[in-house]
Amino acid sequence: MKKISVQPSAKISTRIERDTLGQVEVPGDRYYGAQTMRCVLNFPIGGMDERMPKSVIQAMGIVKKAAAEVNVEFGLDSKISTAISSACDEVISGKLYDEGHFPLPIWQTGSGTQTNMNVNEVIGNRCIEMLGGELGSNNPVHPNDHVNKSQSSNDTFPTAIHIAVGIELVKSLLPALTQLRDALHKKAIEWKNIIKIGRSHTQDAVPMTLGQEFSGYTQQLTNGLERINAVLPHVYQVALGGTAVGTGLNTRKGFAEKAANRVAQLTSLPFVSAPNFFEALGARDAMVEVHGALNTIAVSLMKIANDIRFLGSGPRCGLGELILPSNEPGSSIMPGKVNPTQCEALTMICAQVMGNHVAVSVGGSNGHFELNTFKPLILSNVLRSIKLLTDGCNSFAKNCVDGIKANQDHIAKILNESLMLVTALNPHIGYDKAAEIAKSAHENGTTLKEEAIKAGILEKDFDDWVRPENMLGPN
Amino acid sequence: MKKISVQPSAKISTRIERDTLGQVEVPGDRYYGAQTMRCVLNFPIGGMDERMPKSVIQAMGIVKKAAAEVNVEFGLDSKISTAISSACDEVISGKLYDEGHFPLPIWQTGSGTQTNMNVNEVIGNRCIEMLGGELGSNNPVHPNDHVNKSQSSNDTFPTAIHIAVGIELVKSLLPALTQLRDALHKKAIEWKNIIKIGRSHTQDAVPMTLGQEFSGYTQQLTNGLERINAVLPHVYQVALGGTAVGTGLNTRKGFAEKAANRVAQLTSLPFVSAPNFFEALGARDAMVEVHGALNTIAVSLMKIANDIRFLGSGPRCGLGELILPSNEPGSSIMPGKVNPTQCEALTMICAQVMGNHVAVSVGGSNGHFELNTFKPLILSNVLRSIKLLTDGCNSFAKNCVDGIKANQDHIAKILNESLMLVTALNPHIGYDKAAEIAKSAHENGTTLKEEAIKAGILEKDFDDWVRPENMLGPN
Amino acid sequence: MKKISVQPSAKISTRIERDTLGQVEVPGDRYYGAQTMRCVLNFPIGGMDERMPKSVIQAMGIVKKAAAEVNVEFGLDSKISTAISSACDEVISGKLYDEGHFPLPIWQTGSGTQTNMNVNEVIGNRCIEMLGGELGSNNPVHPNDHVNKSQSSNDTFPTAIHIAVGIELVKSLLPALTQLRDALHKKAIEWKNIIKIGRSHTQDAVPMTLGQEFSGYTQQLTNGLERINAVLPHVYQVALGGTAVGTGLNTRKGFAEKAANRVAQLTSLPFVSAPNFFEALGARDAMVEVHGALNTIAVSLMKIANDIRFLGSGPRCGLGELILPSNEPGSSIMPGKVNPTQCEALTMICAQVMGNHVAVSVGGSNGHFELNTFKPLILSNVLRSIKLLTDGCNSFAKNCVDGIKANQDHIAKILNESLMLVTALNPHIGYDKAAEIAKSAHENGTTLKEEAIKAGILEKDFDDWVRPENMLGPN
Amino acid sequence: MKKISVQPSAKISTRIERDTLGQVEVPGDRYYGAQTMRCVLNFPIGGMDERMPKSVIQAMGIVKKAAAEVNVEFGLDSKISTAISSACDEVISGKLYDEGHFPLPIWQTGSGTQTNMNVNEVIGNRCIEMLGGELGSNNPVHPNDHVNKSQSSNDTFPTAIHIAVGIELVKSLLPALTQLRDALHKKAIEWKNIIKIGRSHTQDAVPMTLGQEFSGYTQQLTNGLERINAVLPHVYQVALGGTAVGTGLNTRKGFAEKAANRVAQLTSLPFVSAPNFFEALGARDAMVEVHGALNTIAVSLMKIANDIRFLGSGPRCGLGELILPSNEPGSSIMPGKVNPTQCEALTMICAQVMGNHVAVSVGGSNGHFELNTFKPLILSNVLRSIKLLTDGCNSFAKNCVDGIKANQDHIAKILNESLMLVTALNPHIGYDKAAEIAKSAHENGTTLKEEAIKAGILEKDFDDWVRPENMLGPN
Repeated sequence: MKKISVQPSAKISTRIERDTLGQVEVPGDRYYGAQTMRCVLNFPIGGMDERMPKSVIQAMGIVKKAAAEVNVEFGLDSKISTAISSACDEVISGKLYDEGHFPLPIWQTGSGTQTNMNVNEVIGNRCIEMLGGELGSNNPVHPNDHVNKSQSSNDTFPTAIHIAVGIELVKSLLPALTQLRDALHKKAIEWKNIIKIGRSHTQDAVPMTLGQEFSGYTQQLTNGLERINAVLPHVYQVALGGTAVGTGLNTRKGFAEKAANRVAQLTSLPFVSAPNFFEALGARDAMVEVHGALNTIAVSLMKIANDIRFLGSGPRCGLGELILPSNEPGSSIMPGKVNPTQCEALTMICAQVMGNHVAVSVGGSNGHFELNTFKPLILSNVLRSIKLLTDGCNSFAKNCVDGIKANQDHIAKILNESLMLVTALNPHIGYDKAAEIAKSAHENGTTLKEEAIKAGILEKDFDDWVRPENMLGPN
Repeated sequence: MKKISVQPSAKISTRIERDTLGQVEVPGDRYYGAQTMRCVLNFPIGGMDERMPKSVIQAMGIVKKAAAEVNVEFGLDSKISTAISSACDEVISGKLYDEGHFPLPIWQTGSGTQTNMNVNEVIGNRCIEMLGGELGSNNPVHPNDHVNKSQSSNDTFPTAIHIAVGIELVKSLLPALTQLRDALHKKAIEWKNIIKIGRSHTQDAVPMTLGQEFSGYTQQLTNGLERINAVLPHVYQVALGGTAVGTGLNTRKGFAEKAANRVAQLTSLPFVSAPNFFEALGARDAMVEVHGALNTIAVSLMKIANDIRFLGSGPRCGLGELILPSNEPGSSIMPGKVNPTQCEALTMICAQVMGNHVAVSVGGSNGHFELNTFKPLILSNVLRSIKLLTDGCNSFAKNCVDGIKANQDHIAKILNESLMLVTALNPHIGYDKAAEIAKSAHENGTTLKEEAIKAGILEKDFDDWVRPENMLGPN
Repeated sequence: MKKISVQPSAKISTRIERDTLGQVEVPGDRYYGAQTMRCVLNFPIGGMDERMPKSVIQAMGIVKKAAAEVNVEFGLDSKISTAISSACDEVISGKLYDEGHFPLPIWQTGSGTQTNMNVNEVIGNRCIEMLGGELGSNNPVHPNDHVNKSQSSNDTFPTAIHIAVGIELVKSLLPALTQLRDALHKKAIEWKNIIKIGRSHTQDAVPMTLGQEFSGYTQQLTNGLERINAVLPHVYQVALGGTAVGTGLNTRKGFAEKAANRVAQLTSLPFVSAPNFFEALGARDAMVEVHGALNTIAVSLMKIANDIRFLGSGPRCGLGELILPSNEPGSSIMPGKVNPTQCEALTMICAQVMGNHVAVSVGGSNGHFELNTFKPLILSNVLRSIKLLTDGCNSFAKNCVDGIKANQDHIAKILNESLMLVTALNPHIGYDKAAEIAKSAHENGTTLKEEAIKAGILEKDFDDWVRPENMLGPN
Repeated sequence: MKKISVQPSAKISTRIERDTLGQVEVPGDRYYGAQTMRCVLNFPIGGMDERMPKSVIQAMGIVKKAAAEVNVEFGLDSKISTAISSACDEVISGKLYDEGHFPLPIWQTGSGTQTNMNVNEVIGNRCIEMLGGELGSNNPVHPNDHVNKSQSSNDTFPTAIHIAVGIELVKSLLPALTQLRDALHKKAIEWKNIIKIGRSHTQDAVPMTLGQEFSGYTQQLTNGLERINAVLPHVYQVALGGTAVGTGLNTRKGFAEKAANRVAQLTSLPFVSAPNFFEALGARDAMVEVHGALNTIAVSLMKIANDIRFLGSGPRCGLGELILPSNEPGSSIMPGKVNPTQCEALTMICAQVMGNHVAVSVGGSNGHFELNTFKPLILSNVLRSIKLLTDGCNSFAKNCVDGIKANQDHIAKILNESLMLVTALNPHIGYDKAAEIAKSAHENGTTLKEEAIKAGILEKDFDDWVRPENMLGPN
């Protein structure tokens, strides 16, 4: 795998960029400038494995585009605005990220300032290039004066977080959750007449249908969808226009609302100006709230995948009610050994999300005064959790749930062997005699029916009385 | 403190109670029976410090009352129903809990079965007593046949959880959060004209008002109120009618809806039947969701209390912008040493809630098949978090926020000393000259004004140009 | 349950106590003074359910006794020292706690200052009483000048934490863990010849003995004991002598070492002076470390209890390899329905400990400068986790593990039905033919033996070749 | 960045590989085979951002090499053994990982089976290539029969985890922690005579030296080093030889010990056979224990970095005691605005580690029976936490601590202004008069000295009496 060169080397031509601290040599084939380069050198933490996520860079492109377009109303030269808007399109498409112009790690300034500057520098130089200027000259497009006009890291970066998270929730997670919910629901319908033993405390209990069991999972995910929808309103509130500390200093009246409106147009999602910029800069509660919903969904999925893992255990010495799809060799010699590998991947993802939730909560609780400075931590965990849940749900639906078969013979066999059906005898022979029959069956390792017949009940009566299909609901 | 006697002793008269495993000696002055006593003996975990919370026992009283009243329609003798209903009132009032009739610990069966039986036994015997029977005789009121009629631990206990949590959220936490929000809001209004230095990265930044700063906290709690309201719909969905595994076996059609409706009447809260009983028994996702909201609120409060702690630091060597109320001696000799003790209590509570959240999530993720068996864990954490946040908010509002005074002289002094106001000179003397003045002030330890005058600016002009009050919003 | 009266009421006589803020009315029958009473009024958080744990108050008694005895060398009047030492004995015994003299909640000052003053006041007044003085007079024993001499809340309270935690680890948790480890070990020995199916991925795998399986659990707890022992060295390092900020101001040279030595004598545990008091006051890392060990133990126990829960599932439709003791009625009619209630209690405890760990970590990470102010949070979680694990292990050993029986018939039956034993045929008939037999058995729902005989293998050969007892180790 | 091609495309030649489920087309330029390819297709989760970490693949190379060399004693052809050993060297060096032969994600089978097969396939085909055979032919080297001989995923993968973690702890984290500890210690020595105000409850307290303050941080990290060393013994215990369920089936006596010994030689670390293979396969407690130590270290670092952040706050309106190195522009116009960016990066890392800890704990608690199936989750979090802490400590030491300067003028100024020094007057003028002076100073906003002189104390006496340098330790 080719490493992105983030440091000047003998082979790569370099150019000089400048910031208020002085000159810095940067790779000649990169658009970023001095501040980005300083950050690369000052934060050698984790390397390319810990790069700022692509989706938040793309979202920064949306922020910069919206600002540039609105800024025309507030004095920005329209030619410059147009150039910035074009360059932003290349950020938004992901092209410039894939080409290595955004090398910064998650573990940098907690405000994302360096990523904001990275974006400003790349867009600035790309504009200069498009307009025929010299890279690094800040002419005719300046990263601060033009690209960052009416903005601060402190409002653009949280805005980009909300945009990236909003998009990923709506366009990735909701469809994936829906796909899995529907896959489970299809099974609930398909298996609505398969009667099985219910289990409480992991112990044999009264009968139910396999469809009923899966309808519970379906409901968990339907609720999960509602939970995501319930957190979106706060996600749609963006900080743009608050600038450095929330007062909106260096913006003009109307900028915030118009810029938020432009973001909404660009994303087709209902983003609006946050009702209070001091909250929107100083706290990241909305992200903690979002991750709370992700955590609940992880909890649901852990439960569902664990159940399916156990219901599919066997083939001979487990519960054996489900036959999971055989996606890979389980054992070279033993047919039927199908490891619940999709359950394992999904439950590991759930554990990761539960852990990420704590990271996000710790980060959210630790901001100080006008600025939360745990933002890259928070956003990277939220985006990773969304990504893992999305991919996990899709894979689990397609590679597991869709292919599960009910092991109907075994389900019927153990239901028939179970002793809980004895309750159906009560109305006919009384509680005491029924209990006696169950006790004999338990001690002798026999079935209720065998003992019932021994006790003088006619086989026909037993079959008439003990009908699990009559035990599936209120009467 | 007098210990509740939960074991027969020489001094206390006892009576014999029975269950299917045989006879058990129970204290003569307690209404509970054999199953409760067995649980006391089998789970010596944590003692009275770890007792099942009172509010869930009271909620069980509501469940039993609702069931008894609805059961009249389904065959329960109306005299027995009336007796049960009366006994339930004594459970609901908390009287029987305070008198020691519910000695069971949190750490018992994960379904709360033993608490359900405790409630059944106490109500049964109390009815018997009211009706002139003999305690322990199950006559004329039987704990299972009558008190538990149409029910199972597996649906009553989660119903009681939802009732207790719903009540505590609505009647305790929402008012407390509102009180604190309003206290902060009052300060935001009161201080709307006090201009201070803003801080980003904990470093001096551009000015803002103290009122603006507190408006951010207000917004955080307004959002917190919305978060609680957003989780209530799932709390209001109750499992009652699902019985053992969610099928509703042993209930009659209509029981579930009518019982939920009766619960709504008794609580004046809009409880309804859960849309899917398999989810309502097998998962406890709604509680994980509730605790997610509590976690977000804890994160908000941690941020707010930390800010106030630091803004009140000093009296001489800290930030010194706020004067916190002096509730207790800070130092016997040093006036002005006021420890931020309310901040400390509140932030500790927040840390506890963040930890409880993990316990709840682990419990929620670990249920198996038709029954989550981490319920007492889950409910005790949810109720404790609500209680701590409620009391913490009330105490913080009353004993801290209400009494905070702005240290206006110091706020003005350090704002005046700060260097960030230099940006106001830019339009008048140019960026370079302004930066030069700031640099001199930083190096000489002087104020901007001193250096500006040295640099030839008229004092009058400086005062006209550098007006923090013009830096508080967009223009 | 009789409530401790912590506020003056019409019925209870009161007296006036004083502190630097003025006069306070306190209950006449309590030894505490003004500062305690202020704290009661200022921190109405959680009530008696959230009281500062008894063991840390008892440990404060040890601290005060050690200091008073050592202070004689540094000028404390020996009569006063003797009185303090006697009063401390009543604190250490728990008598004064049980009588309600320590009403303060966990949720107070984060340094435990108010509890330190509570202890000083109670000991002071108890001394005065013993010496014939007037309560509240500070004469002849003053809570600050005498009881708190050479001390500060900032060093006594963390010292008490270390003492309480050290004692509970050594005298409660280590024995309980050992009891459970030994109970599991006994089963490992007892069952060393019971051959069963092993399970990987919850799927049937190669055979092993039930004793081998339990030996893994035994090893987990042996490791757990090592983990506790590994954290004790830092627990034994106490802050006493650091006073307010770690410098030891207001102590005399030698006090710290002598006082730590006296603590060691009083507790029979090797407490020593911390090597660096700034660490010992500013951080609570040793408690985070301790809870890390508790967390690991909780993880181990969760695994063990989950396994036992599933191995005992059934009686007919589960794995059914273990028969758990029937401690309470599982089902009124179905014999053999034994709910794994002890597993449920223990796994809930484990989830609580995992949550408490996060609370402790958040608290540990948030101290500022010379003083961690999350101490009551931290200590209450550490002590609660120790208590729950201790009681949980004891109950699980006695009420579950000791009484488990191997369901040998069923173990043998399913092992015999399993297909994994086919690997034993390889050397005799070749891999391909063996695989063919397994495949037929899987498809036909038959045993390997049946299919092997069908395929022409002599029954005698099969029995000779397929011997699980030869598959239990390396050869 | 060039994407690794993990799927056949039109441009890339492919070959056919086989496993027991049939044929699979794989990229012609990759060594992996059918099972790896199936896993790529079955687990499209997270893409290249979620690849199995390099260090565990390298550690698998060590495992395979050790096994191959020891297997010669147990029948493996020495030519094949030599080939495997050579191929392993290319795995160990990281070359084959970098070239894209290990494309599998973390989120796969929870046992790491697919990664074990990936390693077997790559080594097998690389051997075949070296020996002149045809890729995919399994001839003359078979991935299972030869590369995996005497092994199972269930023992090799946990062994690789322990090797990778052991190496990273010893060779990365311990040096990095030591570097940071030493950097802090150097400052503690350098600043041992700079007297400053101490702070408790974030409030002014008694004086201490800046060196004393930093000595506390040094001690925290010294303890951290001890904590890492304390967990290594369990890390050094490896599962190799346990095979599928811990019995060692399919190994020969002596293999386990000899293979562990060979691992020790190859790594120069004291790896040994685990004392109980059932524990070593069924649990991952040692990793939970390791992460407990990482969590404690994160807590320590969070505290240290927070303190430094606040001590460096300003330049005018903060505490201003430290001058942090100015690594990047903080504000374009305001000199002295140095954002504590290294503190921010490090505290974000700490929050991540605290979250990872929960993921690891949840994973550790959820294994079932003979096999924990949360291994890739666990190892990826442990390795990531180690990496982040390592890089974070190195960066913090070099880019922050080394360059911190004490702001001596300001430290002296605020110490001089503080009121806590009043305690030094007590012995000379009595408590009451001293308190009066302090009160006046607080009310008038003056210094103690000014008020003392006003109260008639000679300046010379004041200077003689109030000497902070006499308040720095016991006397």
